[in-house]
Amino acid sequence: MRVLGIDPGLTRCGLGVVEGSVGRPLHMLDVGVVRTPADMAVPLRLCRIEAEVEHWLDVHEPDAVAVERVFSQHNVSTVMGTAQASGIAMVAAAKRGIPVALHTPSEVKAAVSGSGRADKAQIGIMVTRLLRLTQTPKPADAADALALAICHIWRGAAQSRIEAAVAAAGRRAR
Amino acid sequence: MRVLGIDPGLTRCGLGVVEGSVGRPLHMLDVGVVRTPADMAVPLRLCRIEAEVEHWLDVHEPDAVAVERVFSQHNVSTVMGTAQASGIAMVAAAKRGIPVALHTPSEVKAAVSGSGRADKAQIGIMVTRLLRLTQTPKPADAADALALAICHIWRGAAQSRIEAAVAAAGRRAR
Repeated sequence: MRVLGIDPGLTRCGLGVVEGSVGRPLHMLDVGVVRTPADMAVPLRLCRIEAEVEHWLDVHEPDAVAVERVFSQHNVSTVMGTAQASGIAMVAAAKRGIPVALHTPSEVKAAVSGSGRADKAQIGIMVTRLLRLTQTPKPADAADALALAICHIWRGAAQSRIEAAVAAAGRRAR
Repeated sequence: MRVLGIDPGLTRCGLGVVEGSVGRPLHMLDVGVVRTPADMAVPLRLCRIEAEVEHWLDVHEPDAVAVERVFSQHNVSTVMGTAQASGIAMVAAAKRGIPVALHTPSEVKAAVSGSGRADKAQIGIMVTRLLRLTQTPKPADAADALALAICHIWRGAAQSRIEAAVAAAGRRAR
């Protein structure tokens, strides 16, 4: 199973592709961050993020996309941009019929570190270890995107089957 | 000048097209609401909203799109979906090189009623009067979308020129 993890954000949007399955080794295929300048108009920043997400979907053809679930309790000054970027990522995947799953930060932390309250450094260490990388992906958004993809693979096939059915129903409805 | 006003929302997204200019009568060309069911997966709800916005852009070819600026202080349970829907609307317009403007609820209320603290009923009455309609557009999201378009027309040409320049710069950059 190949999963594109997306840590949405307007200033930095992390993207990471991981291949693997439950009980098998995980492989990182790609990792990166899309940055958009704070002085650019928001619609144009969102356009750039959409173009990059489309590019990653074209290149990697993932079986699923895992996006961080954004909560309004988060940092108030950035949460609106984060929500908008997550919406763009979801639509880009759903339009292609690719199942989209949302995982909360706690779920992701618990999946890769065993604790829902792990800090950024711990997540970086575990992502590096689980993917057998020689160095920790930087910035943290890149490591978080990989952690999202790992979380999705490990949360198993049952959930994905449900989402695939939902996505297929959506395609038929359109 | 023809403006598509969008009152973003996941459950109800208001759309309204108004034609006019400062100091001239205003005309309503179209008004409507896109609804998506609460039990549908969010990515599919956003896809449906995107498809509808694209359809309205195809049919009406507006000179500008005015979207309500969403604040995270708003109703916490709906703000994330509202932010995501607004992002989808902004990208749909910006990708076509159509200038996108954001107006706050207070700016819109002040533009059509003279008071930034006007209630829903007042906005409905003023939209009906300004567009010389025989009845108030329902639901409130539809009236709000028309109020956004009117606000944009009345806030004048100066701001639009800046946004057109930004949009053109964005087209060149891509």
